[in-house]
Amino acid sequence: MKNVFKDFKKVKYEGPESDNPMAFKYYNPEEKIAGKTMEEHLRFSIAYWHTFADTGEDPFGAGTRVYPWADISDPLERAKAKVEGAFTFMDKLGAPYFCFHDRDVAPEGKTVAESYKNLDTIVDLIEEKMNETGIKLLWGTANMFTNPRFMNGASTSPNADVFAFAAAQVKKAMEVTKKLGGQNYVFWGGREGYETLLNTNMALEQDNLARFLEMAVDYKEKIGFDGQLLIEPKPKEPTKHQYDFDAANVIAFLRKYDLDEHFKVNLEANHATLAGHTFEHELHYARINDMLGSVDANQGDLLLGWDTDQFPTNIYTTTLAMYEILKNNGLGKGGLNFDAKVRRPSFKMKDLFYGHIAGMDAFAKGLKIANKLLEDKVLEDFVAERYASYESGIGKKIVNKEVGLEELAEYAIELGEVENYSGHQEMLEAKLNQYILNN
Amino acid sequence: MKNVFKDFKKVKYEGPESDNPMAFKYYNPEEKIAGKTMEEHLRFSIAYWHTFADTGEDPFGAGTRVYPWADISDPLERAKAKVEGAFTFMDKLGAPYFCFHDRDVAPEGKTVAESYKNLDTIVDLIEEKMNETGIKLLWGTANMFTNPRFMNGASTSPNADVFAFAAAQVKKAMEVTKKLGGQNYVFWGGREGYETLLNTNMALEQDNLARFLEMAVDYKEKIGFDGQLLIEPKPKEPTKHQYDFDAANVIAFLRKYDLDEHFKVNLEANHATLAGHTFEHELHYARINDMLGSVDANQGDLLLGWDTDQFPTNIYTTTLAMYEILKNNGLGKGGLNFDAKVRRPSFKMKDLFYGHIAGMDAFAKGLKIANKLLEDKVLEDFVAERYASYESGIGKKIVNKEVGLEELAEYAIELGEVENYSGHQEMLEAKLNQYILNN
Amino acid sequence: MKNVFKDFKKVKYEGPESDNPMAFKYYNPEEKIAGKTMEEHLRFSIAYWHTFADTGEDPFGAGTRVYPWADISDPLERAKAKVEGAFTFMDKLGAPYFCFHDRDVAPEGKTVAESYKNLDTIVDLIEEKMNETGIKLLWGTANMFTNPRFMNGASTSPNADVFAFAAAQVKKAMEVTKKLGGQNYVFWGGREGYETLLNTNMALEQDNLARFLEMAVDYKEKIGFDGQLLIEPKPKEPTKHQYDFDAANVIAFLRKYDLDEHFKVNLEANHATLAGHTFEHELHYARINDMLGSVDANQGDLLLGWDTDQFPTNIYTTTLAMYEILKNNGLGKGGLNFDAKVRRPSFKMKDLFYGHIAGMDAFAKGLKIANKLLEDKVLEDFVAERYASYESGIGKKIVNKEVGLEELAEYAIELGEVENYSGHQEMLEAKLNQYILNN
Amino acid sequence: MKNVFKDFKKVKYEGPESDNPMAFKYYNPEEKIAGKTMEEHLRFSIAYWHTFADTGEDPFGAGTRVYPWADISDPLERAKAKVEGAFTFMDKLGAPYFCFHDRDVAPEGKTVAESYKNLDTIVDLIEEKMNETGIKLLWGTANMFTNPRFMNGASTSPNADVFAFAAAQVKKAMEVTKKLGGQNYVFWGGREGYETLLNTNMALEQDNLARFLEMAVDYKEKIGFDGQLLIEPKPKEPTKHQYDFDAANVIAFLRKYDLDEHFKVNLEANHATLAGHTFEHELHYARINDMLGSVDANQGDLLLGWDTDQFPTNIYTTTLAMYEILKNNGLGKGGLNFDAKVRRPSFKMKDLFYGHIAGMDAFAKGLKIANKLLEDKVLEDFVAERYASYESGIGKKIVNKEVGLEELAEYAIELGEVENYSGHQEMLEAKLNQYILNN
Repeated sequence: MKNVFKDFKKVKYEGPESDNPMAFKYYNPEEKIAGKTMEEHLRFSIAYWHTFADTGEDPFGAGTRVYPWADISDPLERAKAKVEGAFTFMDKLGAPYFCFHDRDVAPEGKTVAESYKNLDTIVDLIEEKMNETGIKLLWGTANMFTNPRFMNGASTSPNADVFAFAAAQVKKAMEVTKKLGGQNYVFWGGREGYETLLNTNMALEQDNLARFLEMAVDYKEKIGFDGQLLIEPKPKEPTKHQYDFDAANVIAFLRKYDLDEHFKVNLEANHATLAGHTFEHELHYARINDMLGSVDANQGDLLLGWDTDQFPTNIYTTTLAMYEILKNNGLGKGGLNFDAKVRRPSFKMKDLFYGHIAGMDAFAKGLKIANKLLEDKVLEDFVAERYASYESGIGKKIVNKEVGLEELAEYAIELGEVENYSGHQEMLEAKLNQYILNN
Repeated sequence: MKNVFKDFKKVKYEGPESDNPMAFKYYNPEEKIAGKTMEEHLRFSIAYWHTFADTGEDPFGAGTRVYPWADISDPLERAKAKVEGAFTFMDKLGAPYFCFHDRDVAPEGKTVAESYKNLDTIVDLIEEKMNETGIKLLWGTANMFTNPRFMNGASTSPNADVFAFAAAQVKKAMEVTKKLGGQNYVFWGGREGYETLLNTNMALEQDNLARFLEMAVDYKEKIGFDGQLLIEPKPKEPTKHQYDFDAANVIAFLRKYDLDEHFKVNLEANHATLAGHTFEHELHYARINDMLGSVDANQGDLLLGWDTDQFPTNIYTTTLAMYEILKNNGLGKGGLNFDAKVRRPSFKMKDLFYGHIAGMDAFAKGLKIANKLLEDKVLEDFVAERYASYESGIGKKIVNKEVGLEELAEYAIELGEVENYSGHQEMLEAKLNQYILNN
Repeated sequence: MKNVFKDFKKVKYEGPESDNPMAFKYYNPEEKIAGKTMEEHLRFSIAYWHTFADTGEDPFGAGTRVYPWADISDPLERAKAKVEGAFTFMDKLGAPYFCFHDRDVAPEGKTVAESYKNLDTIVDLIEEKMNETGIKLLWGTANMFTNPRFMNGASTSPNADVFAFAAAQVKKAMEVTKKLGGQNYVFWGGREGYETLLNTNMALEQDNLARFLEMAVDYKEKIGFDGQLLIEPKPKEPTKHQYDFDAANVIAFLRKYDLDEHFKVNLEANHATLAGHTFEHELHYARINDMLGSVDANQGDLLLGWDTDQFPTNIYTTTLAMYEILKNNGLGKGGLNFDAKVRRPSFKMKDLFYGHIAGMDAFAKGLKIANKLLEDKVLEDFVAERYASYESGIGKKIVNKEVGLEELAEYAIELGEVENYSGHQEMLEAKLNQYILNN
Repeated sequence: MKNVFKDFKKVKYEGPESDNPMAFKYYNPEEKIAGKTMEEHLRFSIAYWHTFADTGEDPFGAGTRVYPWADISDPLERAKAKVEGAFTFMDKLGAPYFCFHDRDVAPEGKTVAESYKNLDTIVDLIEEKMNETGIKLLWGTANMFTNPRFMNGASTSPNADVFAFAAAQVKKAMEVTKKLGGQNYVFWGGREGYETLLNTNMALEQDNLARFLEMAVDYKEKIGFDGQLLIEPKPKEPTKHQYDFDAANVIAFLRKYDLDEHFKVNLEANHATLAGHTFEHELHYARINDMLGSVDANQGDLLLGWDTDQFPTNIYTTTLAMYEILKNNGLGKGGLNFDAKVRRPSFKMKDLFYGHIAGMDAFAKGLKIANKLLEDKVLEDFVAERYASYESGIGKKIVNKEVGLEELAEYAIELGEVENYSGHQEMLEAKLNQYILNN
């Protein structure tokens, strides 16, 4: 098998003057921003499933992208060749992290035991490649949605046997994540949701989901895995209604079952917009609830109603996302995982580079702009002034809970009328444009 | 002033054979269903704002409906005439409850004190009319969104003085709700949300919202108001993002601030669909979280993106809503409030009757169909069988937390493969149709 | 191979009293409605692709439904077994028509010649089965979206060679449609649209689409195919923007290229809602433009943004659709094709029966209700009265073009003010409910 | 009355180094781009309704912005003061054009005659101010949606008297547009659409709309008005369905009634997205159909479902819009009209400046970027190469209509297989970002 990625040159930062589409224009891993390198800020990660397993197939047609390992008939040998290609690609691209589902890297066997064995074989090879290249594992997870067995969900399946199969899979996936030094373990709902309420016992399903997560917390402690556990919200697709609808919904669930101290959220841009929120809203909301764990860096098309998982290139979104991340003092163990795929007609191997470079550059530029906004306190000062009335007088008493409805009513009667100040939204939008266009 | 509603005949149940559009075809208040009368089940309420204050104006044009009291120039006299008209209408219609905002019933004065006085005057008159007619108050609330003062929210305003004005208003509104025997007090977010994150301190705003609700809880206890406190979710409009996005979001908020024991949710059909949920989803979700308090009975147009507040006529929605309500053992102190308005070109006084009759009949029929579905255990039996695996064996152990990932993995390895059963969604949808069309 | 469908009993009309889920409750093919049998009115057709080729796979997982012919390794033999199974199913169900794409019935070969040969082989078998069963072909079409070759469209591909391959395919598909007595030939856009304007020459693509359709018209005439040519609108998916967005868009296109006399539209319910229209809007619009050709009978989920292709069970939609079809004096050569698939967890063979029975019953009931509405002139009389002002006086002069702006201005000045009448929408919605619930 | 706008300094271009929020950063009217000044390219226009009549009211609350003329009780005197203020504002801002509805500038009288007289009075004053300031009229139109009379539409009203009133209004509005040298006359649908199909005769309504437009064409010719007639598409709001849904729909309509030579379209960004299209799609589509007339420059919020009419600040949208406009060789008599309003909490007079400056700068920058993209042929060359196969060989024969299905089938059989090239969408998106961020 030809390792097609071998022929590509290593992607470098060539600065804003270059127009080589294979060079970074804005992402310079070693450049320092606010005391950390870009690489440390951004913690970019490659999604094994989209970049090495997806072939561009969609509900209306077959894949268009032919990987060099595609014609190896033995599944395990194909998986090995894929590892080889994947690490070559990531190394050429200069991405420091990757993420995977168990089934992305190793073929499912006929039995659980065989699946375990396949996974072990490949994980050994991955470990070797990680040592060779220095590429690290951001997070691992288990694919519990592709196999028909999970047609009605995994831990929320009406079938207890399916719950057991899901448990077997998460147990192993958490073990290999630990073995590879994974910094997080992600629970993405897959098919945890429902198609119709007519046949659904939502109370039992949600209780079972909580039981499953408790088991995972227990097992994590038992094996001494010190990564962060993450839940990824998504509102719909593949099921009509997914239980982990958005950050608030996940947090309501975790608080109900006293699980909130064990989990944070892994927020995806496209899932945010499918739920009717901006990406920055979800990040902001998770941040102020101390639940922001990691990010799936992609973008959707707001005129389309499905999860398009496009590479993130909108500079407004990357700027405002990095703004929230900087205000969160970074993502801790989390990172920016490109849960993104090139469009179906972008079927050439170099399109995989283009997509990632486009995304990495957009986030690098977003980081710089966001940092400048913070340094200049453009929004911070405006906000501080806008809310200043809570720093003294009646506002301070409200914040300190020194007054109730009666005292406030008396105050209002005395005051007569309020004087408001403008939100100056248009001025702030113009300012944001100036920072984007001139930095 | 002419009391135009006087000329209408009292609306009666004339049974399915009648075709008089002014008669109920399905709503027969005295008919018994599962041990209670229809009136007891449905607890219909008229929304003072839509039915007696709204004139059909919209962002593109002036009102089309001219109330008989419209040409009374003195605001307080006009308010009195409106009370007169309102109770005549409600009496003719046979609605047992009504709901109001403070500003719907009495004009805002130049000062807080004057507003209080106006409200007292009208509330006395309302009390008199309630005694005369037997019509009861389902809930009261305060309008904290119309006055420009609340342009940035009430308790989430960046301006502490606005917070105080809001407190003054809620204090009074809660007092008059108590005086009139109101069974609930509702917090509808109004403008509690944001227009742009660029100028917003969401953490402070949400903390302040919690402080405000705590004050309300305290005051409720102080004055001995024994009604239920309710929060009404809505995702957007008037602000770009409303904090009380959906039931899950509200519950996450209440749990964070330990307020969940003091509040339930008042769910509106149109707000559910604006948030991307079916109405029955929101009801079901609140029900299994023991948070279902009351209902704003209307419907939206799923092809339009704003709150159309149409009268509820979709029989699928009313059936599935009543199904959830029956499974909740009713709404307790809550009821079905018609937060609905006739379309702008339905500008005749009799259209107000038509709209309510259409909605009441749709819910009455929905109640009968839902009750039949429950009596026949059409869905209940299907669901029980579908989830039977959690009643014994490994499923029971999962539910009883007797197993963890390891035991389940062993079980799965042993099992080999699962056998799933079909969700039979299409069969259930056909069944539902048969119950709708033949009951 | 086992012909699993053999074991099913023939589906019969058992009338409204039956509760056998395998019987029709409302569809009685021989029942007369307004002078025609139900079968003549409804002209139900089975979609070969969804019912015999789709296995329930989706972007997140593998198929769940295992057809009995699935394990036949030779593609042509598998295709033959599929024909056998398909006709058994259709015969058991009692569907009078079917529809297919070339690639649904016969495997694509390595060359165009081989594909032609495969198709010929299977078409001969289909013809035999048609003769045996009396099942007829509603329409044929060509699948020009699954093969990677069509990644950028077929006749709108930037690649002229792809245009040629599309031509080769349509030529053959039209020939076999003629051979099988197909009553229509459908053009569904497939990937005729774009992913991004950044790389698209829309003018050339649309000109080429017109050229392609002209060639098809020419070839139709040359071979003497007397079926109706149809274009099926769809706004998005698989491409970001599909050229045949909705009925109006298709008609604008056809009028531009003087093709409108040769084509009608094949309207799908789910495509209508994805375009922001109700299904009845699209039917009505096509009808008054004399372009209503045929119908893809399914339904979408208005809270989801992709083409869910569910079986049509909403009685409002089927009633209003049949209303339009009755007002169109039926669909002529067209029919109601179930472009619908059972949900992924409905993976049993009997779910295929349930889905079709649910849809056929919903349309049968819709037909009866719509016919009753028309017989009673419920809406017709209301509309006639509402627009009566155009029957005489100034209105008649407007219609007859006897007046211009000046004469009308004089008339308005003279008149002083207008008097409007209510649209009574809520009353009409209540009426519609009564017809649905009591017929 | 105080003319508050007098106190503002004239807005100037201060170049990219300035950070005065009241200066243009990018809009330099005299700067030459591709042979024309920015002012000539952009032809900015102020919308009288939003900027001088709208007070920030919305369906949930009263206006927040108090114009200095608000307390003048006599409507005509108030209108005069408004003219004074408007021209001061426009002069300070440096906008070369404005647009208005008849009712924005002059109060409607009790009779048509009085309305005419009011309009004449104000138009004389406007003419004076235009001469004084050099500000020109981009287009005029008639407001046929605010008055309750138009509750069911104007020329599509079921009431012939309403049609006559609409005619009287358009006659006069066209006359004053001519008198003021207006370069276009716009037909915005207002309420031309329907609320429910249950009470609608769409065929008659659309025929009447066509009759109305024919009368307008006749009258235009009669009075010698040489402006361009424009129709503005919008899919929904205020009615559930607006007839002028999108550009394609309008064009289908015009072609049906042979009106297409007399009209072009006035495209609004927010209306495009409400219809499910990008703004650039609508511009592109109109351009290649030779129907692009003028632009309403604003933007919507794609997560909200109503017409938010925000000031356009998204640099992607302004760049791609200007790209289409440059490829159209400009807008001819059309221009960029800011059909935009500041957010409700932006209630200060200076927010009106901020909003327009934000929009003008965003379009000025978009113009520069688009021009650079065209100069460098970034997209043009890519597209030319992508479609090169239609320049020779079989592609050329297709374009020249020298081949049919048969010849193409032979060609395809001969060819064997096609070779596609990648759409390279991600690379193009990265390129676009580089042009935006570095120009």
